[in-house]
Amino acid sequence: MHFFSDNATPVCPEVMAAMASADRPDHGYDGDQWSARLNGAFSDLFGTETQALWIATGTAANSIALACLCPPYGGVICHEEAHIVVDECGAPGFYTHGASLMALPGEGAKLAPEAVRERLEAIRPDVHQVPARAISITQASEYGLAYTPGEVAALGAVARDHGLGFHMDGARFANAVAYLGCHPGDVTWRAGVDILSFGCVKNGGMIGEALVFFGDQARARAAEAARWRKRGGHLFSKGRYLAAQILAMVEDGLWLRNARAANAAAQALAAAAEACLLHPVEANELFIRLTGGEAAALRGQGFDFYDWGEGAARLVTNWSQDAASVQPLAEALRALRA
Amino acid sequence: MHFFSDNATPVCPEVMAAMASADRPDHGYDGDQWSARLNGAFSDLFGTETQALWIATGTAANSIALACLCPPYGGVICHEEAHIVVDECGAPGFYTHGASLMALPGEGAKLAPEAVRERLEAIRPDVHQVPARAISITQASEYGLAYTPGEVAALGAVARDHGLGFHMDGARFANAVAYLGCHPGDVTWRAGVDILSFGCVKNGGMIGEALVFFGDQARARAAEAARWRKRGGHLFSKGRYLAAQILAMVEDGLWLRNARAANAAAQALAAAAEACLLHPVEANELFIRLTGGEAAALRGQGFDFYDWGEGAARLVTNWSQDAASVQPLAEALRALRA
Amino acid sequence: MHFFSDNATPVCPEVMAAMASADRPDHGYDGDQWSARLNGAFSDLFGTETQALWIATGTAANSIALACLCPPYGGVICHEEAHIVVDECGAPGFYTHGASLMALPGEGAKLAPEAVRERLEAIRPDVHQVPARAISITQASEYGLAYTPGEVAALGAVARDHGLGFHMDGARFANAVAYLGCHPGDVTWRAGVDILSFGCVKNGGMIGEALVFFGDQARARAAEAARWRKRGGHLFSKGRYLAAQILAMVEDGLWLRNARAANAAAQALAAAAEACLLHPVEANELFIRLTGGEAAALRGQGFDFYDWGEGAARLVTNWSQDAASVQPLAEALRALRA
Amino acid sequence: MHFFSDNATPVCPEVMAAMASADRPDHGYDGDQWSARLNGAFSDLFGTETQALWIATGTAANSIALACLCPPYGGVICHEEAHIVVDECGAPGFYTHGASLMALPGEGAKLAPEAVRERLEAIRPDVHQVPARAISITQASEYGLAYTPGEVAALGAVARDHGLGFHMDGARFANAVAYLGCHPGDVTWRAGVDILSFGCVKNGGMIGEALVFFGDQARARAAEAARWRKRGGHLFSKGRYLAAQILAMVEDGLWLRNARAANAAAQALAAAAEACLLHPVEANELFIRLTGGEAAALRGQGFDFYDWGEGAARLVTNWSQDAASVQPLAEALRALRA
Repeated sequence: MHFFSDNATPVCPEVMAAMASADRPDHGYDGDQWSARLNGAFSDLFGTETQALWIATGTAANSIALACLCPPYGGVICHEEAHIVVDECGAPGFYTHGASLMALPGEGAKLAPEAVRERLEAIRPDVHQVPARAISITQASEYGLAYTPGEVAALGAVARDHGLGFHMDGARFANAVAYLGCHPGDVTWRAGVDILSFGCVKNGGMIGEALVFFGDQARARAAEAARWRKRGGHLFSKGRYLAAQILAMVEDGLWLRNARAANAAAQALAAAAEACLLHPVEANELFIRLTGGEAAALRGQGFDFYDWGEGAARLVTNWSQDAASVQPLAEALRALRA
Repeated sequence: MHFFSDNATPVCPEVMAAMASADRPDHGYDGDQWSARLNGAFSDLFGTETQALWIATGTAANSIALACLCPPYGGVICHEEAHIVVDECGAPGFYTHGASLMALPGEGAKLAPEAVRERLEAIRPDVHQVPARAISITQASEYGLAYTPGEVAALGAVARDHGLGFHMDGARFANAVAYLGCHPGDVTWRAGVDILSFGCVKNGGMIGEALVFFGDQARARAAEAARWRKRGGHLFSKGRYLAAQILAMVEDGLWLRNARAANAAAQALAAAAEACLLHPVEANELFIRLTGGEAAALRGQGFDFYDWGEGAARLVTNWSQDAASVQPLAEALRALRA
Repeated sequence: MHFFSDNATPVCPEVMAAMASADRPDHGYDGDQWSARLNGAFSDLFGTETQALWIATGTAANSIALACLCPPYGGVICHEEAHIVVDECGAPGFYTHGASLMALPGEGAKLAPEAVRERLEAIRPDVHQVPARAISITQASEYGLAYTPGEVAALGAVARDHGLGFHMDGARFANAVAYLGCHPGDVTWRAGVDILSFGCVKNGGMIGEALVFFGDQARARAAEAARWRKRGGHLFSKGRYLAAQILAMVEDGLWLRNARAANAAAQALAAAAEACLLHPVEANELFIRLTGGEAAALRGQGFDFYDWGEGAARLVTNWSQDAASVQPLAEALRALRA
Repeated sequence: MHFFSDNATPVCPEVMAAMASADRPDHGYDGDQWSARLNGAFSDLFGTETQALWIATGTAANSIALACLCPPYGGVICHEEAHIVVDECGAPGFYTHGASLMALPGEGAKLAPEAVRERLEAIRPDVHQVPARAISITQASEYGLAYTPGEVAALGAVARDHGLGFHMDGARFANAVAYLGCHPGDVTWRAGVDILSFGCVKNGGMIGEALVFFGDQARARAAEAARWRKRGGHLFSKGRYLAAQILAMVEDGLWLRNARAANAAAQALAAAAEACLLHPVEANELFIRLTGGEAAALRGQGFDFYDWGEGAARLVTNWSQDAASVQPLAEALRALRA
């Protein structure tokens, strides 16, 4: 049983079925009937008028979002362990044409509003220094922690006060919302988020994430993003197969059902590994202390996962699991401590 | 019955089946077993050692190929109606960081070697002028014409003489090879092509083309391209679904079978529309003279296609058709002239 | 006596004196008293409120102007022999991050409004095609022809109708205005020009041109340009030496006096070479038919100039000459024809 | 008496004289006789064959150097307070097309070899992470500290071991060499430096720094840099005025004489302010603890300088001073402590 990554998991059956249903002639690119439904579907989901585009990958979604918010000579405040800093081979620098990532430390890979304010105040307002133009956070964070509505809103207030755009990398947005039990609008537009990378692939999709634009500038930014999407080589000829996947996720609540299943599996493991958790478990990732011997023992029993530096491991649960199905690993974890 | 575009067509069943067979846990990105087979599959197909990467779209494939061949201050010799010039919203300029497209005229959207040589000789070898660094051609061309092995080789010789890279946009490579009846190596590496964008989506695929690297520098360029693929946001988390499609195309000849079907359909229509063809029909596209009244009449009978400027139309056939299935349109075209 | 280029000429004494007068301690970059006078000096010169920045070179001025007017996915309509196309090694593509130069033919290297309109109308308004966002013309043109106020205004009207920015490369702006005898505002802001590269170096300066912004968006664009100037490595530590040169040019009419001298020299030569002129002589450049033997004969008498392809030559006069001082060449030219 | 910055100082007389001597007709751009002498002059200075180009500014020199060493998807290891990080508005990101600056802490704004090695070892060798491709250090550092030959060589060894390029920002290279008393080759090519930004402007020049290339790849990199220089808008029409300045600096030792004068002035102040120095004084900058009251007192006596955060100040000496001429400030500093 693998706990490598939610990327390693198959596609969920509802998404497969949606792709099959889109398998008939229609207009190319995003001229088809499925793509046309995206704005409406996300407006319903978020309870406000939004613009939404399908985008190939999370890296592309994040980078295009930042290109809409930050000029080449600007900077993006973010966490030093953010995916955009650590795992995208400089893609944000590519799409923004060289904007700077202004990386800050912060507990649990979360940005603290005071730290952001302090960083902003240290920037001289002259042409020699890179001006911050956006804030980007990850929901759930790279250590699986969710920002509460209040925490997002506090960062949204900093963004507003300083005239910055506010982007949310929601590769595991569904897991965060499932954990928080809030309305998805509470941690996005109501809290000041301008653009959300809404993750689907880790949550049961095959190919394609959504980029969701909120607020007064949504329309203009989405039009700009559509240019970047084409220019970046991301305007698929047969976009309907992406749109159909995303609609399957959001039109009837599949995104939350899948996330709840993955979260429940993570909670079951967390309960078993309580004593060795490196971070609280809120979404579908566990970071645990684990000696080399323990890791080998687990692998010997057929459980696969990534080492996380020395003496630690990362376990990721996914939509195809639940509390019951991960009991074998839960028991194995308990046995380690016994 | 639509003749809009090969993009509007569904995915062919063999490709769908291949995606279903890849629908099980495996490593993310391109660490899976299907992606690992690409180099071998294309080496077999072309009869020489190649490197191959799956890439999201034709635009991305072309742009990344050019980024491997041309520095930001360089230029790419191409036809003025090439897809990279006309239909990619400047994507090559994005991936190459500003390289110039040096567009030339040419019959049937094909580049003539003498025209290329003349253009090259007009460039002063100083730092004020953009130096040409690559040639890019489209096989089949934007007007559906195939470059013969000899024609490709003549351009390859120009490239070699001037130290230029040589890229082929093969969005309809299969149709060209099916028409020419040659070995795929005859119009690529044996003729001097360095990098080929090998099209799958127009030929029955869903998402994903292949970028194929030939020659001594194949390995280094493919490694570079893998960086651009990630940096461009094109490294899919679940790349196995792309790899499986491409393998289904090339491992047992599906690419040629599909292309032959589309070409046969095009020939059937060409025979019916002989008197009004604007270009010879060699691949799966027809460009025909058609008055507004004639176009309306055809549409009234349920045939859809694009107008091509005034008094002309473009008809594209596809893998799901053949000579028999397009008879209704062939008859309608004949009737127009009667 | 050289007629190579106005670049080959020394610096005029008034400019040298101005640099000497700036040779004392002051604030760095553009915080000095000379730089502070630029906005006022150009506002006086043009009879409207302008913003003005010193910029290293004409290539930098042109490129930064275009970066202020055109997004990376946009295009700039220009003449196919424009300096930005032919002689800047792709610098506009660098500063605009990949915008396309949409080059048009046109008599005397001048753009014709109808040709521009026709080009604009051929662009499909979808994301696949590069949208035009700016027009750029050269005053005087690359063949030494001046656009009249009416000609500039006609292009300005096209720009306004299509929502495009309008840039003028004024490397030899002074020569054009001297020839036209109009107010400098008549061929710039009154005719719709948004940004002017105001040339100084060819007209007697040492280092530094001015970038002049007109209209409602002048302030915002100048602020943006100041960012590009720094980011492009053009914010000189001791900017006062550039500002002083430019002020010397514009504050008391030196720019026009110098241009008139150069133009008078050109007219004297034009009168002598009337029969073999390839273009009318309006500014300070002559393009003449000249056999290899004739060229050798002139060089043998000590006159230097550039060949202009086969059987032709380019002669450039400069600020340090006048009708009298070029009589030796005028006579030599007359003698050739005798 | 100002101690703001070495940028605020006039041009030294020898440089002015050199510019006057270049004030006669010659070929444009870098085709003149002065530009032609640069390679030789720097080869003599460094005791090895070098290539050298004049470049507009230090920011441009640094950025172009990094563009020669680091691809767009790569990273540059540097100090977190380096000029390239803090004061260039992202210019390195512009010229490298988005490369990442990998900023490290370090005492006195100097990089420590072990810290660099540790950072390098933390980078996973996959396409998700940005690979380091260059190291950049500042000599003297942003806090006025000189790297000894041994210290540079230790970093050079790291660069060599990891296949990285090695760049030195020598805005105050002369001051560092004057302090160290070593041969300029000892802290550059003999220690593994590939490209040096050789500062002239802070040391008495007007406009123009030199970019100096060492080693096997010097010629290829200089050719590449010449492209960037043009493409960046830095190829001045009258480059001879820059070349003449640089030659005046290096051909007869002016660079060292000027630096020694500035350093002597700094030492005289350091002796007076010994108790409140924040960093050892090695070049021509002093960072001292200074209360608001003390700062006001000094300014009241006519001494100008920058505040350096709260309770501190930066004083910069320059070529036009020496130990004697700064005695008034030295005494004022001593008086503060009395």
